[in-house]
Order: sequence, then structure tokens, then C-alpha cells
Amino acid sequence: MDYKLDYISRIFKKTSKKRTENYILTRIWHQLNNTNIKICHQQYVNRGDGKYALTDIFFPQFDYHIEVNEDFHYKDNLKKELDLIRANDIKTSTKDHIIRFIDCRGNLEQIHSQVDKIIEEINSICLEQKTKGNFKPWDGNELKPEYWLNKNTLKASDNINLRTIDDIGTLFNVEIKKRGFLKPGAVKYPKEGYTEIWWPEKKKKNNWVNDFYEDFKYITEEHIDDEKSISHLNYFIKKSPNCKRVVFFKYKDELGFNFYKFVGCYEFSIEISKKQNKVIWKRFSESIDDFRIKKPVHNNV
Amino acid sequence: MDYKLDYISRIFKKTSKKRTENYILTRIWHQLNNTNIKICHQQYVNRGDGKYALTDIFFPQFDYHIEVNEDFHYKDNLKKELDLIRANDIKTSTKDHIIRFIDCRGNLEQIHSQVDKIIEEINSICLEQKTKGNFKPWDGNELKPEYWLNKNTLKASDNINLRTIDDIGTLFNVEIKKRGFLKPGAVKYPKEGYTEIWWPEKKKKNNWVNDFYEDFKYITEEHIDDEKSISHLNYFIKKSPNCKRVVFFKYKDELGFNFYKFVGCYEFSIEISKKQNKVIWKRFSESIDDFRIKKPVHNNV
Repeated sequence: MDYKLDYISRIFKKTSKKRTENYILTRIWHQLNNTNIKICHQQYVNRGDGKYALTDIFFPQFDYHIEVNEDFHYKDNLKKELDLIRANDIKTSTKDHIIRFIDCRGNLEQIHSQVDKIIEEINSICLEQKTKGNFKPWDGNELKPEYWLNKNTLKASDNINLRTIDDIGTLFNVEIKKRGFLKPGAVKYPKEGYTEIWWPEKKKKNNWVNDFYEDFKYITEEHIDDEKSISHLNYFIKKSPNCKRVVFFKYKDELGFNFYKFVGCYEFSIEISKKQNKVIWKRFSESIDDFRIKKPVHNNV
Repeated sequence: MDYKLDYISRIFKKTSKKRTENYILTRIWHQLNNTNIKICHQQYVNRGDGKYALTDIFFPQFDYHIEVNEDFHYKDNLKKELDLIRANDIKTSTKDHIIRFIDCRGNLEQIHSQVDKIIEEINSICLEQKTKGNFKPWDGNELKPEYWLNKNTLKASDNINLRTIDDIGTLFNVEIKKRGFLKPGAVKYPKEGYTEIWWPEKKKKNNWVNDFYEDFKYITEEHIDDEKSISHLNYFIKKSPNCKRVVFFKYKDELGFNFYKFVGCYEFSIEISKKQNKVIWKRFSESIDDFRIKKPVHNNV
């Protein structure tokens, strides 16, 4: 399925239970009728004091939020008051963002006319960005390895998300062989100074657990059985003390898409690992140059 | 909630699991952008030989069907062949209907361009009907009692669907009192020759069951306990042998809307009831004239 269709139709499905919100979301998407504009449902907004709010619809290219206030928002005075506080919090904490509210108490025509105004505004912001030359079209290609292939450097800050391990293989020119239905968890990486490309996830797998600390600065690798963790640690200390890995973080986003996100280059940290009694990887770089192998290799780890 | 919003958003929700179909349905609705055109999902089409097919999207005002062929329709030769047979059956049995197919294998732009053509066609059919003066706008008002109030005659063939028993009360100018949370099942109807207005449904309620036969020609009324059924029958024979009721059939449609549909006027049929050993109502008219009471009455049955 076409990626954008996949993405949008997942959002439609995800919001289908909130019928009015779903109606408005689908209307905005189809009436905007511009596949270069990305629409998101639910965006975290800092309300200050460690509190967060979720806005219903969000356009990341324009920092534009929409709150859909369904009937029940107006039925209860407490709810109305809390909505007001929330709206003010959101306005205060997103100073340079735009936030618009849709009142869904009216009939279809009244709701449509509110949506029309929002679409007009988004179109004019988009046009303004285009005129200034700073409009970045929503590019499904960023999810494809071909998009990154010819860059000299991969940077964690570039938000590189690939969709399959085959895409990782294509990007690095490294063949990743599957063993029947078993997908490997890493592949050998024959670049000077490196040992593997690895794609851990935050999920217990065969009783092995990985976790991520301090915004991906550290990754832990341990078995639920302490003895196995320690023997694994000892193996690394003896056999691979200089092991260095390029790491993709495997995760499922809230729409159910699997992604492999480039998070940087890691080295086995003997010092910290010994202290913590388990294998710990420490990030030594958030980017990698000349990452592409000239001749592919065929061995999985 | 506005009825049309309620209706459309229920269809969106109902189709949300079939993501591509939902995407196309929402697109057609929002791009047509005409609240006078009713859109339905799934329409039974006779395929002949007692077989039926469901088309995915249907426009009742134009007898226009759309079939959304998702990816998987093309992946399997048997499925492709069955689709072809089905499409031919549908085409043959809906000679004067229009049926269009959308091939969803392409990318978003390719799908959009197919939808564009369909929208163009529907708009031109709509314009043609308007020019000829036979376009009937989708009128949510038909569900309101006010729409029928000033008609001289109510006809079962007019497809009169009301949404609440209060609407029935408004239509006949008869006050229907609720007893706390209990909704009455009928109300006295002080029109010459009639006794009640009744709204049975096809559902067991306090162990009483109603059923409908021969396209609403007969309605049965019985208790799951035969003795109670017979004593109920005897009560009617002795006390109300000439009982006559205006009947609305209460049902829930596939989108979850409750409706009360006018099905006609019924009389207690002593002869058939005795034969069947339960109370049986027989339709004596599919319409009623001068149905509206000049002065309201206050007693429920």
C-alpha cells in the first residue's frame, strides 16, 4: 500500500471512535487536498509544571493545532472551565504556534463553515512559506533508504526512520539474510573501526531485554537471568572489548507502523558495564560518515 | 448532534476497519461537498438465483454504485475470477444502475484521480436531474414529525421513519408520558374507530415477543409462557374484540439508529388469534387519514 495512504488511513481508523473529531479530520484532509501537507492527530503540548495536553489535530509543517470541541464540552460547567484553563495553558506554552478551536454544537453547515476558514488559513500559511522558500513538502521518500543513500553523513538529528531491516541493508549495502522466518537482530558491518549494525527494541525477546537511558546515550543489554547476563558480559570483556555498533532503535509508533530509527554509534563500555554487572553500550557519536560499504557482505551476526 | 453529521460519521466509523474503502468513502463525501446528496455504504444487489452481493458505496438518488477493489483483490487469481463473475452478475441485475470500480493498487495520486472522475460523473448526473426537475435532495427533515404533520394522509409506502416516541406524540398530538425511566409501549389514541398507537419491536421484552409476518400483514403478540399468552388472548376476546391500532415498527438500523417506521393500521383478529392460540393483529389499512388529534390526551395505555 502507498505509504501516505497507509499513514492517513491509519489516522482515520485510529480516530474513528470519536465520530465528530474523525469527521472533521477527514474533512480537513480531503478538502485541503494537498498530499504535500502532513496531518497528525494528537500532539503533545507542554502546559508547564510538568503537565501535558494533547491537541486533537496538528500540522507539523506549520505548528498549527486544532482542538475539536464536541457537544459534551459545552454541557457541563466544570468541563467548560477546565477547557478554558487548558486552552489558555496551550496558548501560553505554544506562543509561536497557532491553535484554533472548532465548536461542534451546530449543524453540518455550521461545522463546515468553521472548517472552511481553517483550510483557508492553512492554505495561506502554506503559500506564504512557499513564497519565502521555506516550505518543506511532506516527503514519504524520507522513509526510503534511497533518499539517504547518497548523503555523506547520517545524523541522528535528521530523524532517519526506515521501515524494514532490508532497508537498513540497502542503505549500508550490507546483505541481511533471514533464517527462515527468523529475522536477525544485527548484521556484521565491515567498516574500519566498527563491528555490527544493530536494531534493538524496548521489548523482552527470548528473555533478553534492552533499555535506553538519557535520551539514547546508553543502551543496556541483559538477560532476565542474572547469571546469563554476567556470562554475556564476560564474553564481551574477553572476546570483543572494542566492539562498536551502528544502532537503529526499533519501535512501533502509535499508528502501528514499525520503524528503525538511526540513533548513533555505540561502543561497548567496559568500565560502566563492570560497575552495573551487565553489557552497556555508550554512544560515542550521533553521526557516521562514509557509512556505505562498497562491496556487500553476506554474514549475519 | 445534527442528524446528517450523526449519519455520516456513523458510516465513517462503521467502515473504519477497511482502511482503503474508508479513505475513499470519506474522500467522495467531502469532495462531493453536497449535503443534499445521500451516501450509503453497502447496498444489497440481487445477483439472480437467490444470490445477493453488497456493493461498497451507493448513492440512492442516482442508483450509482461504487466497488472499491483493495490490493488483495488482485493478488489471487481465484479472487480475481470471482470478482469478475460478481461484477458481471451485478451489472446484469442492475441494468439501469451505474456501477464503477476503483482499483486501489496505485499510489495516492492514482487513487485520487479515479475518485475525481467519479465525483465529476455524480455531479453531472445530479445537475441533469436538477435540470429535468426530478432531483430529490436528501432531506433530514423527513425524519421529523413536523414534516408529516400537515399531510392529510400517512402512507406506509411513504417510508415514514421517526426517531423517538415523543416524535410519534408530536405527529398525532397525543402526549406520551414516561413513567420514570420506563418508556411506555403504546398510547391511547382517541380517534373514532381506533384504540391505541403501538410501537412493537422484534425483540423479547419482559418475556413478551412480537413477530411480523408476510411483509407486516400480521403481527403476533405472545408470552414465552403459553398460559400467559392464552390468558392475554382471552382478555382481548372478552374486553377488546374491536381493538384497532396504528402501528409503528421499532427497529435499529445497521448504523445503530433507532427508528419507528409507520407500517399501517391493524385490528385484533379474533378468528386467526383463536386458531393460533395467541393474539394476532391483522393489517386492515396501509394508510390513515385525518390522523392528528385536535386536543391532546394524557393517558398512556
